[in-house]
Amino acid sequence: MTSLEDLPIRDDLRGRTPYGAPQQAVPVALNVNENTHPIPEVVAHDIVARVAAAIMTLNRYPDREFSALRGALADYLGHDLEPAQIWAANGSNEVLQHIMQAYGGPGRSVLGFAPTYSMYGLLASGTGTEWITAGRDDEFELGPETAVAAVREHDPDIVLLCAPNNPTGTPLPIETIEAVADAARGIVVVDEAYFEFADPGTPSALTLLEGRPRLLVSRTMSKAFAFAGARVGYLAGDPAAIDALRLVRLPYHLSALTQAAALGALAHSAEMLAMVDEIRGQRERISDELARLGFHPYRSGSNFVLFGGVDDPRAVFEQLLARGILIREIGIPGHLRVTAGTEAETTAFLEAIAVSAPNRIAS
Amino acid sequence: MTSLEDLPIRDDLRGRTPYGAPQQAVPVALNVNENTHPIPEVVAHDIVARVAAAIMTLNRYPDREFSALRGALADYLGHDLEPAQIWAANGSNEVLQHIMQAYGGPGRSVLGFAPTYSMYGLLASGTGTEWITAGRDDEFELGPETAVAAVREHDPDIVLLCAPNNPTGTPLPIETIEAVADAARGIVVVDEAYFEFADPGTPSALTLLEGRPRLLVSRTMSKAFAFAGARVGYLAGDPAAIDALRLVRLPYHLSALTQAAALGALAHSAEMLAMVDEIRGQRERISDELARLGFHPYRSGSNFVLFGGVDDPRAVFEQLLARGILIREIGIPGHLRVTAGTEAETTAFLEAIAVSAPNRIAS
Repeated sequence: MTSLEDLPIRDDLRGRTPYGAPQQAVPVALNVNENTHPIPEVVAHDIVARVAAAIMTLNRYPDREFSALRGALADYLGHDLEPAQIWAANGSNEVLQHIMQAYGGPGRSVLGFAPTYSMYGLLASGTGTEWITAGRDDEFELGPETAVAAVREHDPDIVLLCAPNNPTGTPLPIETIEAVADAARGIVVVDEAYFEFADPGTPSALTLLEGRPRLLVSRTMSKAFAFAGARVGYLAGDPAAIDALRLVRLPYHLSALTQAAALGALAHSAEMLAMVDEIRGQRERISDELARLGFHPYRSGSNFVLFGGVDDPRAVFEQLLARGILIREIGIPGHLRVTAGTEAETTAFLEAIAVSAPNRIAS
Repeated sequence: MTSLEDLPIRDDLRGRTPYGAPQQAVPVALNVNENTHPIPEVVAHDIVARVAAAIMTLNRYPDREFSALRGALADYLGHDLEPAQIWAANGSNEVLQHIMQAYGGPGRSVLGFAPTYSMYGLLASGTGTEWITAGRDDEFELGPETAVAAVREHDPDIVLLCAPNNPTGTPLPIETIEAVADAARGIVVVDEAYFEFADPGTPSALTLLEGRPRLLVSRTMSKAFAFAGARVGYLAGDPAAIDALRLVRLPYHLSALTQAAALGALAHSAEMLAMVDEIRGQRERISDELARLGFHPYRSGSNFVLFGGVDDPRAVFEQLLARGILIREIGIPGHLRVTAGTEAETTAFLEAIAVSAPNRIAS
């Protein structure tokens, strides 16, 4: 039998294992920051109708420039954005890949602030871009001074700012984004995948786009829109910076099904986002309760909570899994991450983890 | 206003323009080798039902390993293939990109036989792989001696064989594939995007997979399956060679909608492929009639015909477009390419082009 070692794969891939959060069928899956609320039935019906219409013309290639979708995304984002300022792809991972293909590549570098989204390093590797990580301030926060110092030190071609940050959940001050955008000579990407879960009143990096043609703001429909299965990520920026991505995307990269489904969801954005307040409430409940139990939850502007103070994360992970609750080990010693689910899922998680809590009452 | 020249794009992208067959709304679109027959209504209904079910769980990430789809594709291909021997992605372009990311990249090379599918060079560029082209025999055919000589001369890391070849339509003898697979030290990819249109009895490169772990055979659902809008390409090969692609794909690259739609189509493969014979008949009709008119059609094993003997391709293209018929200029002087459409579309094309024919009878 042939093994991978017998095949002429790229040297830097040898010995590597694929990205792989476990995909297990469990009653309570709180491991990959999905929105655990299904999309509302009335919206689902409209999406089905639009997708059904698209299926009747599937023999033809889809609109390569996804013009209608660009318009709908611009309308959703607001801030007077035009369709020409919008990009989209199969998940924000592909959006970021397009950015690295256009602005990174061999001989170029991308800077991030660890711990951060694990795909950044893989996307850098996949595009031959050097991946540089700098550290954060206390409590995984990232202030302007720390961020700008790293930009000055490493002089990267691309800076990736995750706001709020995954896997820590920590919000990123708009002052940090502004300072980095002003200090960096290259492209600055603000990954706002979880932005809709930020506390009300939090300014988006979209407010900084005007006059900053090297600033790009990425979003996803996977989280707040409960659309992870549809794979729709998107981006806002200067029309020229967006247009460059047409040089590296694969033609017809967004299927007619994807375009139709996303248009359906965006036509009902208020209903699609109705669960965001509820999820934010569960997140606060998790943070409060974990603190009460003696864990160390970090400040979160997302739909998940990272918490420290876990003596044996693997044991706690397994103990929860035995009760049908899947959370995430994210590779930080003494820490675990949990997604804010429905009220019932959150209750199940909190009851289960209480058994392992530092402050636990004898069971 | 910012222009692309003001932005820090990769040096090798400067001055480039995106891939772009015109997407114009015309009555008779025969320019991008689509299947011009819509998918049968009974199949469409099943696909809608499956996609509707998928929409109800879109809040969750899709099956990252697309296990059911792998099984269905293995069943469709036959040749005793197992699901572990199957890969799939958003169009065969993405399949080929995964191959170049895993087995190509900086310092490595990929060899093709020009003129061939224009995306090969773009995919090489996008992955930092050197793109080398060798020539063909007379009439754009490619025999074993010519192919093997080029492999020996250039010693590439990857060989791309397009069978039948696009944009020339010429079939590739199985002897050429076998000889290249035996001569090459690297990965040999046989792109069978148009294989279902080959003359009955033509052997697929799938028959050569056994004992050749570096041979990969790609297919697409875009053409024979009339599924261009769904973006489903796939690949068969050795399980280890396939597994390597998991190192470079983006996680969850195939949406739940794509997986559901493809499973629906594959459950009805006989009905989906019912139009293939009819299309092959129209292709033969085009070839015969173009020859009669004094053009020079090339031998085709696909759903399109390349023809030479055109004094002014641009003028003929425009003259057809003025009559609502869109065909393709593919950059070979004196040549044009046309897709075999329905009988009515083929008639419209043949009547229109007769006006420009070398042997035309005074109109």
